[in-house]
Amino acid sequence: MTRTTEIRDAAAIGSWEAEADVLVVGLGCAGASAAIEAHDAGADVIILERSGGGGGTSANSGGLIYMGGGTPVQEAAGFEDTPEELYRFLMAVSAPGPDETKIRLYSESSVEHFHWLETQGVPFKRSFWPEPSMESPTDDCLVFSGGENCAPFSEIARPAARGHKPQTEGKAGPFFMQCMLRAVERRPLRVEVDTRAQTLVREADGRIAGVVARRAGEELAFRARRGVILTAGGFAMNDGMVERHVPQLARVGTRSATEGDDGCGIRMGQAAGGSLLRMEQAEVALATTIPSRLGRGIYVNARGLRFINEDTYYGHIGIEALFRQGGRAWLLVDDATFERNFFDQKPLHVAETIAGLEAEAGFPAGALVNTVAQYNRGAEAGADPIFGKRPEFLVPLVHPPYALLDCTTEGGPYSGLTVGGLATGTSGEVLDAEDDPVSGLYAAGRTAALFCGRGYAGSGISLADGTFFGRRAGRHAASGS
Amino acid sequence: MTRTTEIRDAAAIGSWEAEADVLVVGLGCAGASAAIEAHDAGADVIILERSGGGGGTSANSGGLIYMGGGTPVQEAAGFEDTPEELYRFLMAVSAPGPDETKIRLYSESSVEHFHWLETQGVPFKRSFWPEPSMESPTDDCLVFSGGENCAPFSEIARPAARGHKPQTEGKAGPFFMQCMLRAVERRPLRVEVDTRAQTLVREADGRIAGVVARRAGEELAFRARRGVILTAGGFAMNDGMVERHVPQLARVGTRSATEGDDGCGIRMGQAAGGSLLRMEQAEVALATTIPSRLGRGIYVNARGLRFINEDTYYGHIGIEALFRQGGRAWLLVDDATFERNFFDQKPLHVAETIAGLEAEAGFPAGALVNTVAQYNRGAEAGADPIFGKRPEFLVPLVHPPYALLDCTTEGGPYSGLTVGGLATGTSGEVLDAEDDPVSGLYAAGRTAALFCGRGYAGSGISLADGTFFGRRAGRHAASGS
Repeated sequence: MTRTTEIRDAAAIGSWEAEADVLVVGLGCAGASAAIEAHDAGADVIILERSGGGGGTSANSGGLIYMGGGTPVQEAAGFEDTPEELYRFLMAVSAPGPDETKIRLYSESSVEHFHWLETQGVPFKRSFWPEPSMESPTDDCLVFSGGENCAPFSEIARPAARGHKPQTEGKAGPFFMQCMLRAVERRPLRVEVDTRAQTLVREADGRIAGVVARRAGEELAFRARRGVILTAGGFAMNDGMVERHVPQLARVGTRSATEGDDGCGIRMGQAAGGSLLRMEQAEVALATTIPSRLGRGIYVNARGLRFINEDTYYGHIGIEALFRQGGRAWLLVDDATFERNFFDQKPLHVAETIAGLEAEAGFPAGALVNTVAQYNRGAEAGADPIFGKRPEFLVPLVHPPYALLDCTTEGGPYSGLTVGGLATGTSGEVLDAEDDPVSGLYAAGRTAALFCGRGYAGSGISLADGTFFGRRAGRHAASGS
Repeated sequence: MTRTTEIRDAAAIGSWEAEADVLVVGLGCAGASAAIEAHDAGADVIILERSGGGGGTSANSGGLIYMGGGTPVQEAAGFEDTPEELYRFLMAVSAPGPDETKIRLYSESSVEHFHWLETQGVPFKRSFWPEPSMESPTDDCLVFSGGENCAPFSEIARPAARGHKPQTEGKAGPFFMQCMLRAVERRPLRVEVDTRAQTLVREADGRIAGVVARRAGEELAFRARRGVILTAGGFAMNDGMVERHVPQLARVGTRSATEGDDGCGIRMGQAAGGSLLRMEQAEVALATTIPSRLGRGIYVNARGLRFINEDTYYGHIGIEALFRQGGRAWLLVDDATFERNFFDQKPLHVAETIAGLEAEAGFPAGALVNTVAQYNRGAEAGADPIFGKRPEFLVPLVHPPYALLDCTTEGGPYSGLTVGGLATGTSGEVLDAEDDPVSGLYAAGRTAALFCGRGYAGSGISLADGTFFGRRAGRHAASGS
């Protein structure tokens, strides 16, 4: 059995099944973008896809793409955005340790990237959808998808909606990847499906020169004259890697991932000397947290204390709950909030008073009573000085009965994905322990570490990363430099 | 210039400076323990030390060694401890994702390890020092050094003091390493000082077979017939690695580290295919937090909220402040608490009322007032239901003036070290991306990931890790299996 941690010597390969300038492993959004750009830069390209066809986890996503700095959609919807404001937001939301170089590059190139996607045949309606955090149920495009207009970010950068959804109704991942795959098909790119890349091939001089793959039980070697680009997904579906690197995610029931996210691309790159980055981070969305539905309630941790402004992006709430509150959280609502919304979940506890709810749920004595009293005092005055929730979501919780919804991560309404992966340079070149490129090797999409930094900037950042840095990897690999 | 990310082919080595069964890189506590055990298991051993003599960061430490399960010192001091209680504590304090196998092994072997250290000539007085968290100023031995008798751990495992200090007055790191180095000297071990290991050497079959080092500008190759053990420290002094993997630590002014902690051992192992583990974790102690001095005050974050039981181990407070409170924390005391203690720092803000202090320091309106009122209500009743501080530290803060001490990590009283490193098995064998051993390669001490898990269990856990798993690496390498 071939192992991803092996490296094959090129000299030991008996015969090559095929050869191209650039080999791309995986046909999700990053692989498609890399292949298109490598081709357009003059390279011939072979794509190896382990499943029966392209799409990958990108086709399973909501389809939002995080772009800004003044895209035509933003302009049509009346948002003033600039590369500088996009940069400021990404730097703040990706702290600590944001990747300033990549954030600067992406911020300055985001409008160009929007036009490139449209040129490939991905349409975007010039419209805004006011419900934040996730894709619209209509074919409308733009949403606030990273808490840009919420504390603390609204004070750091001018708020602008930047989640762009390709023009189709509801979840747009499948449609987006249809568009991208059509763009691949319009070019003379060779796609080898049902072909699972397993091991990299290296020349005597250290240059990565190909891939050994399996198809129908048979081992096939593919040669790359200029470069190999790994775009094989993340590791959310590899239980061992998740448990080792980000055990908090192991508790999250739903993964925004497909079977291919088993870490094979990451491990192949690692075997070639690639460094790993931010393996202990994850994206975790608290799936029912849509502000207009639940933002008027308050989240409390196991101590009965609030921990975030409840009106923000559900990914920020999920990460806060999972990584800093021990994965234990509850949403407290009153009857008025409950009536104004609808729920996927039944309340876990219901009581006529906050003190009764506190006792029934077993919070520390006085904790919930104090938390709600403090919140209500502020809400009555239209202010949330501690967490900065916006006034329109500040309603005193005073209408019994009161209820707690279970938002603990174990079995709770969360979904997550991994954001750690191979360390890469600005052209997708895989970097080794000394920050030098591994010759001939590239990575993009979730096989690489999320470009901007820690946490998860907002919905759409992963497709932005995969397409934008996938393109750069394709161009750079095609140049053979 | 030789780079740590290279691997040399054994066949390309012109001449070997020397050869031994086992090569040990670095002569801190892990290197000494590995060398002694490799020798005692029948191997001849060469130790390569980059500085002019042994000691390393171990000699710069307080000298506590975390041991339990019923050591003679624990018995003499009246603590009932068992391997099971030690196991329970380490599992809880190292969550999420504790390394159950290594914790089980260490818990069951800790008493044997104590006797081994005494046999090597490390003396331990049969006595207890009641001030927790750090080593005694006297020659007394045993301290609570991990918050074992504080919430939440006191409810999880029977509290026992487990920080063992070798018998000398005050800081014991230098004395401890003198004892260990004498044990090395009593054996016919060859120590090559001023010799900086830089690159591993690999046989054609993949086995690690030596080290290329530099001494006085000259490159020297050392051959290992059975194994190479990397015990070259952590990466706290490598700014690039710290910024990349654990940027929070970059803000911490003081590092519990020496020049050698530049990550070279980790990078050498990585170049040989070793995986890295828990690189984003760190130990960070809030250096002035000795309960009897400051435990009667309360820590607040930038929102003016408490976040921990202030009577616990200063490492738990430091990690909480750094990783979950954004590195921003203040200690609030009143005049009575201030008088009862002494401070290294001047107060940052002083006011006659809590409301005045809140306004002067710029906390959110009402936050500090509410926090102190809630704390005082509990303290008057002798209870801290939310955080569980012990009654003896619960004193209402009611004596003006009130003061805030700055405990933000930037420039604050913190010291830190790295705990991430090479992934290893129970015998110190370096593991690759598939969890298989890299043939002939071992790591221990801070070159390996801290054995027990995330965070930092308590003072003394790093010397325990280095000596115990260093020994196991030495024995296993000597066996040549």
